Amino acid sequence: MIAFAVHNQNLVMKEKPLPKLRPRWALVCVRLAGICNTDIEILGGYRDFRGTPGHEFVGEVADVRGVPARERARWIGRRVAGEINASCSAYGYRPPCEFCQRGIRTHCTRRAVLGIVAHDGAFAEYLTLPLENLHIVPDSVSDEQAVFVEPLAAACEILEQVAVRRFHAAAVLGDGKLAQLIARVLRTALPRVVMYGKHRSKLALARRAGIGTRRVHGDAADANRIQEEYALVVEATGSSSGLTLAQHMTEPRGTLILKSTFHGAAPVETWPIVVKEITVIGSRCGPFTKAIALLRSGKIDPMPLITRTFPLREAPEAVRFAQRRGVMKVLLKPQ
Amino acid sequence: MIAFAVHNQNLVMKEKPLPKLRPRWALVCVRLAGICNTDIEILGGYRDFRGTPGHEFVGEVADVRGVPARERARWIGRRVAGEINASCSAYGYRPPCEFCQRGIRTHCTRRAVLGIVAHDGAFAEYLTLPLENLHIVPDSVSDEQAVFVEPLAAACEILEQVAVRRFHAAAVLGDGKLAQLIARVLRTALPRVVMYGKHRSKLALARRAGIGTRRVHGDAADANRIQEEYALVVEATGSSSGLTLAQHMTEPRGTLILKSTFHGAAPVETWPIVVKEITVIGSRCGPFTKAIALLRSGKIDPMPLITRTFPLREAPEAVRFAQRRGVMKVLLKPQ
Repeated sequence: MIAFAVHNQNLVMKEKPLPKLRPRWALVCVRLAGICNTDIEILGGYRDFRGTPGHEFVGEVADVRGVPARERARWIGRRVAGEINASCSAYGYRPPCEFCQRGIRTHCTRRAVLGIVAHDGAFAEYLTLPLENLHIVPDSVSDEQAVFVEPLAAACEILEQVAVRRFHAAAVLGDGKLAQLIARVLRTALPRVVMYGKHRSKLALARRAGIGTRRVHGDAADANRIQEEYALVVEATGSSSGLTLAQHMTEPRGTLILKSTFHGAAPVETWPIVVKEITVIGSRCGPFTKAIALLRSGKIDPMPLITRTFPLREAPEAVRFAQRRGVMKVLLKPQ
Repeated sequence: MIAFAVHNQNLVMKEKPLPKLRPRWALVCVRLAGICNTDIEILGGYRDFRGTPGHEFVGEVADVRGVPARERARWIGRRVAGEINASCSAYGYRPPCEFCQRGIRTHCTRRAVLGIVAHDGAFAEYLTLPLENLHIVPDSVSDEQAVFVEPLAAACEILEQVAVRRFHAAAVLGDGKLAQLIARVLRTALPRVVMYGKHRSKLALARRAGIGTRRVHGDAADANRIQEEYALVVEATGSSSGLTLAQHMTEPRGTLILKSTFHGAAPVETWPIVVKEITVIGSRCGPFTKAIALLRSGKIDPMPLITRTFPLREAPEAVRFAQRRGVMKVLLKPQ
């Protein structure tokens, strides 16, 4: 099979044998993969990952090992999205780590993460994941929608962490791919969601989904220009300057959700968190079931966020294209 | 009366008339005042405050205005501690701000703060506060104990914000005055509290109060040395390096309380908050009633934390002394 791997901050194509399967793992033929900012960070050195990146995908189950024939038959050929954290149970660790015992598999201390930590990802013709990680995609959800299940689930994680409906409004800082999904998810539960972003075209996309918008410049002077405060603020700019503005915009005793995982130390004044007694909540992977339900119901349509689809063989060009100003989601299609 | 004021990063003594009283405010004759790190920050320019610093005190009510004679008589001569935020109701603002309407007076948007924001503080013979801010000190609590009510209340704020008893253990980063009180407050509710500090003598003080201790160096290498993780961590180092270590020591889905209000931007990597989905809670002023109850019950004795008491007239020397290595609480005594 064809797979891309990280080498010297670039993607290089390799011809590899199909990966071997552990018991209760599936071989998945990738139908579409999405390029996420984390992939760009990985190319820049994040996590020192040298394997195949890519953790957003929709695929078709091609093989399953270590299960009864009837169970195997139920999986083969099914269209699936997949949770990206492979935990103790998937590797047969006994006893499981404390977090797996508590049912928090996304924080398994021994976890491998698809395309991010110690496990090859979706910029390839095939990938492997434990069966327990797979979610069947309903027929009414297209491949182009299903490839958004993973980032949409990450957006839905906010609903698991905060009782969103007790707020009247929320601000989302950032207008990128994840920020767009977050704003749409919040909008399903709140009458007023306002996106603060730098790009006119991206803000226009949000407005078409019923989201209020306000343009910012992304510099220190934004804090002087913006006087609004919100009880709920989500920082999803992906840049170091976002946190300072987010603190400024969070009202006393308010909640600030952090979604950006950019690398590098940003100079931050933390005393406003203390003086305003803000609650800052880090938020990562989320519930796939909820994300699939939102797509199936039609409450969220991510299709307008797709800028372009490249053949898998053009992955290096696709990654460069994804970093251009104004570009939203870029997809890779193996065949 | 004699009062000290901030001038060119120093304390200068002034002879002033007694302050005038608004209706339902009290004139309080200061019996003892405590020097807090915030006072040192204020001398360094924090909040641009130019009045009389000092917000930790125990005093005696000398006068009250705008109340019936019988109510006045009940107050005069009583020993009191005082909440430091003077809110809308104290100034007669109508309508009150949103936070006062919600009963969160410590976050009043128009608040003055004793010795910190727009209201003269306790490094003086007399101060004024609204009656609604005063708490009577029981006879069994000495002046030397009562002067700790304000910082002890700030430590107790953690109990208001987090259901501490659902944790098995907590780490307190820092061994200073506030960290010592926080560790003692947590120890009343938790079987195991461990203080991570730089100073042998301060850690020894904590051990005598039943608190576990571990010595750190206060540099970046601490993160390599310390492998323990806690579900509850309190950052009270008062320094910029504390947050990074605190994040490192907070387990996935854990809670990190921020108490340090040092000024200046510290370089912070925030991605661990996101990846570990940590909840960071800023924590400031707290419940005086609970603090007084802890002192009265004898569950917390702050007396060993007093290093020295200076006459009020020697306030500048006292502030310099308070900044010496190894010095804990320094008090000022007007007469």
